[in-house]
Amino acid sequence: MVTSQDVARLAGVSQATVSRVLQGSARVSPETRERVLSAMKQAGYHPNAAARAMRTRRAGTIGVVVADITNPFYPQLLEAVSDELGRAGQRMTLWNATGPSEAGALEAIREGAVDGLLFTTVTEMSKPLEEALQRNEPVVLLHRGLDHIGCDQVTADNVAGGRLAARYLVRAGHERIGFLRGPQSASTALHRERGFRETLDELGHSLAPELVRPGDFSHDTARAAMRELLDRPQPPSAVFCANDLTALGAVDGAISLGVRVPEDVWVVGYDDIAMAAWEAYGLTTVRQPITDMARMAVRMLIERIEDRTLPARRREFPAELVIRRSTAHTPAS
Amino acid sequence: MVTSQDVARLAGVSQATVSRVLQGSARVSPETRERVLSAMKQAGYHPNAAARAMRTRRAGTIGVVVADITNPFYPQLLEAVSDELGRAGQRMTLWNATGPSEAGALEAIREGAVDGLLFTTVTEMSKPLEEALQRNEPVVLLHRGLDHIGCDQVTADNVAGGRLAARYLVRAGHERIGFLRGPQSASTALHRERGFRETLDELGHSLAPELVRPGDFSHDTARAAMRELLDRPQPPSAVFCANDLTALGAVDGAISLGVRVPEDVWVVGYDDIAMAAWEAYGLTTVRQPITDMARMAVRMLIERIEDRTLPARRREFPAELVIRRSTAHTPAS
Repeated sequence: MVTSQDVARLAGVSQATVSRVLQGSARVSPETRERVLSAMKQAGYHPNAAARAMRTRRAGTIGVVVADITNPFYPQLLEAVSDELGRAGQRMTLWNATGPSEAGALEAIREGAVDGLLFTTVTEMSKPLEEALQRNEPVVLLHRGLDHIGCDQVTADNVAGGRLAARYLVRAGHERIGFLRGPQSASTALHRERGFRETLDELGHSLAPELVRPGDFSHDTARAAMRELLDRPQPPSAVFCANDLTALGAVDGAISLGVRVPEDVWVVGYDDIAMAAWEAYGLTTVRQPITDMARMAVRMLIERIEDRTLPARRREFPAELVIRRSTAHTPAS
Repeated sequence: MVTSQDVARLAGVSQATVSRVLQGSARVSPETRERVLSAMKQAGYHPNAAARAMRTRRAGTIGVVVADITNPFYPQLLEAVSDELGRAGQRMTLWNATGPSEAGALEAIREGAVDGLLFTTVTEMSKPLEEALQRNEPVVLLHRGLDHIGCDQVTADNVAGGRLAARYLVRAGHERIGFLRGPQSASTALHRERGFRETLDELGHSLAPELVRPGDFSHDTARAAMRELLDRPQPPSAVFCANDLTALGAVDGAISLGVRVPEDVWVVGYDDIAMAAWEAYGLTTVRQPITDMARMAVRMLIERIEDRTLPARRREFPAELVIRRSTAHTPAS
């Protein structure tokens, strides 16, 4: 392996001079600097990452925590995060919070192995978040936010999205509306539910408790919950789902019972993941601009790393209803 | 921030002694060692990652390169990789090779920012792989392999998988068989195609060139290619697809034309991603044991980091045909 000693020999300078060039010191003449840089190139010298991190106090790496990488929402988010970090010359260390690895994010903050953290999955009880904020480390919350926490946050307007879904279903004439909830620790699930419930109440179509089922943003739980709803003596004529993965599970639950979507039951999702548009599902859903949100969050985090004294910023993106085949027909009822 | 100086003061020892404890030096008495460790705990001291990397020459981080994180195959692989790395106390730095970030993996190897690399996406021309092997860095190829390269590789038997698909379709009586190919730079695509073609040839049902379409393992390309095949005067009665994402696109292409799967055309995929089992698709496919392969690859990489002199090892997992609704009926022809 080529060392800074080899570079010094090749350039005919001391090793201390090579170090000064690497540190960008002003105590090196332009000629010497040029000679050292060309010796580095000639020798194929790449400064050690750990040595540079010690010198610059920067790891050159961002930590990203996702809730469940097998939920197709997160890979879409990660693709945009990865592209934006690549453009900024930053690496991405990833934690998948469903696994035993979330404790790793906490350790990485403590040790300075990452310069900042992007949490896409935050809950009230998130220990890594709590510690990162106590230490005034650069943190941006993406997708899921926390109302009472003063840190950078990039979210979509999930309350407005829930309202859109409620108005759409009531205006289409649905009387028996079902709801498949998300995990009650996620702000996205809570806000979507709040907007949905409030608007149904306002329009005089309050949710019947027996048509509401708990959920965990997983396909299998949603599929089972949908089968329960459809097996009732009076099944719902439309079901709103707290995210698209839940809605895909709901459609599959209907198919498994021979119940037709949308002829027998409408299904509405939330997120507009790529798969929602695929013909087999053709899911009506509330879109959030996943890629734009991810890019904004990365840029905010990089700014925050440069300047920790910036005031906390919040960006909220609008929600939009996208109508597809899973609701396009007029229901029989 | 707590420093090693604070720890030294609290323990009543010199900073050099604290350093020796951190290095696991034998020149520290058990009593002093105990005093320093308890002072660290009391002070909440966490050794800096860069300092430790300098000392141990270990980054504590593994680099993982995936081809396209929005292909659901890769999140399933990554979930297993992430769990296994978490258990081993290693971090995961991720590169998504479709983005502008693959060059980052090359840089990370050079700089020692990762201790080893897991390539899930290797092609003949992979520059990061070439450089990593030249430098004798710990590398494991997972999923995609390279026949002529002597390094650790964990793959599934893709030739056997292609053979299974061919035998199944011919035995079911199909005469006009179509094929949606994968990218010709991926060993998985090449091996599946080789097994499929060879067995069709042996059984006297060689592929008709007009029923073969190029592909890139993407849903949209597959959907368009399937529409082309189905628009022919004599469309195929069954189509084998080089991976599951391609098969999902093929099913959606059929739906978009009102062509029924499996009544009008059978579709067979490859991988057995979770989604293949979902009712909307119910995909017949060739299974590879994604989780087992990922775990094996991580364990091999960790062993390789411990001992670079180990002989190169290859593990090949068997392929298995999983029959579902996308082929379950007897075709009309």
